[in-house]
Amino acid sequence: MPVNTRDQVVLSGMRSTGRIHLGNYFGAIKNWVDLQDRYRCYYFIADWHALTTDYSDSSRIAETSLEMLADLIASGLDPERSVIFAQSLVPEHAELHLLLSMITPLGWLERVPTYKEQMRELANRDLRTYGFLGYPVLQTGDILLYRAHLVPVGEDQASHLELSREIGRRFNSFFGDVFPEPKALFTPTPRVPGVDGRKMSKSYGNTIDLADPPEVIEQKCREMFTDPQRARRKDPGRPEACNLFQFHRLVSPPELQERVAQECRLAHIGCVEDKKLIAERLNEFLEPIRVRRQELLQDRDALLDVLHEGSRKAKERAAETMDQVRTAISINYRDLR
Amino acid sequence: MPVNTRDQVVLSGMRSTGRIHLGNYFGAIKNWVDLQDRYRCYYFIADWHALTTDYSDSSRIAETSLEMLADLIASGLDPERSVIFAQSLVPEHAELHLLLSMITPLGWLERVPTYKEQMRELANRDLRTYGFLGYPVLQTGDILLYRAHLVPVGEDQASHLELSREIGRRFNSFFGDVFPEPKALFTPTPRVPGVDGRKMSKSYGNTIDLADPPEVIEQKCREMFTDPQRARRKDPGRPEACNLFQFHRLVSPPELQERVAQECRLAHIGCVEDKKLIAERLNEFLEPIRVRRQELLQDRDALLDVLHEGSRKAKERAAETMDQVRTAISINYRDLR
Repeated sequence: MPVNTRDQVVLSGMRSTGRIHLGNYFGAIKNWVDLQDRYRCYYFIADWHALTTDYSDSSRIAETSLEMLADLIASGLDPERSVIFAQSLVPEHAELHLLLSMITPLGWLERVPTYKEQMRELANRDLRTYGFLGYPVLQTGDILLYRAHLVPVGEDQASHLELSREIGRRFNSFFGDVFPEPKALFTPTPRVPGVDGRKMSKSYGNTIDLADPPEVIEQKCREMFTDPQRARRKDPGRPEACNLFQFHRLVSPPELQERVAQECRLAHIGCVEDKKLIAERLNEFLEPIRVRRQELLQDRDALLDVLHEGSRKAKERAAETMDQVRTAISINYRDLR
Repeated sequence: MPVNTRDQVVLSGMRSTGRIHLGNYFGAIKNWVDLQDRYRCYYFIADWHALTTDYSDSSRIAETSLEMLADLIASGLDPERSVIFAQSLVPEHAELHLLLSMITPLGWLERVPTYKEQMRELANRDLRTYGFLGYPVLQTGDILLYRAHLVPVGEDQASHLELSREIGRRFNSFFGDVFPEPKALFTPTPRVPGVDGRKMSKSYGNTIDLADPPEVIEQKCREMFTDPQRARRKDPGRPEACNLFQFHRLVSPPELQERVAQECRLAHIGCVEDKKLIAERLNEFLEPIRVRRQELLQDRDALLDVLHEGSRKAKERAAETMDQVRTAISINYRDLR
């Protein structure tokens, strides 16, 4: 059955805990950009979510979010084609979160795999808070507030979406059908290593940020881990086992990838040389993003206007949903007139 | 140091889970009325709180809240002197609840005495929800949202207020002084028994409601428990051990109380007769409230206007608080201009 996908609402968000890095770009934003013309897209800067783990030092959330908006637009998100907004500028997120909290069994939250995982990973911070436990409820609110049909997800987010579906179903069964069931839109997410070979992540401090200036990129590339078995220049390399080569896969044209792979295996090219090559490619890739980003940040008021206008559009759909929600649970005073 | 108490904000609320009964009236509302001219009073109908225990059957929350407003005004609350509003019409409650949830340790909530107590009392309902656990966080938001100085409390609420103070302190210590420390305003709360002698409570089904018509009052009085040791008419009674006599303390003038006590001890008056006396006194007390209540409910639109106007006033102070809160945690986009 052919469906006009332009009627399908896509919803996704990103926590504003710092600068956007290549892991964010290739893991999410690139897909967001690709989806813009096919769906009705709502993308948000999750500034409230940033508080769940960074509550004790929130000194830059709004500032970080504004820079993030610049990064997003510079990366190809178009405020004319997508609704781009900040979570905290649509307070309906908090209202739906509260209402959903009333029907969400504690056990469902305690079983979320990423909950225990993050507790372990971020053991140095005190995450035994009510808000951190309720992270998936807020996330569910984010999705249901736009009556989203599709949520682009990576593999590690699948369980959260399952929970959102369950909470939505529970709401519908108590109060009547308000929410469509949000489906996962699996998008290609290549592995993006950090400079140290582990997954690129802010908490590992191994990121390459979209805003890194050329000399920082060069420096980070110089420090990159390569194939540990290639100890000397004359040793043949193994591109498939080399951290460096993963970056070619992300930003180099296929011909270059093939050439480098071959020359590496024959030890015709050394790691130092290859690192320079990667730095060049990364800078070539990042330069237009950096330029656009800078332009945008030069007029902060205009950028804030874009954020507010996007949030206004988001609020339209959110308010419509909340009116339906309030009526469904018989707490809508408008219905008493 | 003399303080102009009119600068002091008083905040209190009541869950809209049903009709207001004498327990509510003598336990809270009478005090609210008395405080109106001495403080800057904010009184709210806690419609969202009603969901924490009654989420699966919310079919009448808005309707119940409107009737409650009629009860409150009929009982002497004056929308000109106090700000009377509905929690859900000031969505800032949800926003502050969300923000406070981020800094509230789970352990603090799990230790709240009333949490475990209610879990036991309402064992027939499934209260293991995220929202029920977070009840005190929402309650804290209610208080802090108006930067309240004083909260009229009964004894069983003291622990909740202590928790609210702790959460407020924690916020201030992370983000700077935004919230004054809310203090308990201990108000006289006589014991109000239900018709069966237990504490008057909706969940026991033993209430006398402000809206009960005269014949229902008579019926309920006829069914009232009295001194169990006074088996026969000619046995002397013990007013101090008699459920019935507690109602004299609430609604009879001192002379009548004294006379009845004496005649009861001498077996000059019987229980049947005394029940009639109580019914008369209760009806005399309730009649003006019932009349006013009915008048108010005849023009529902006007009553809704009162609710909206009160909520608009509440929102003014709430919005001011939230602006300060957002600035404190650096999530205020206004500050970036």
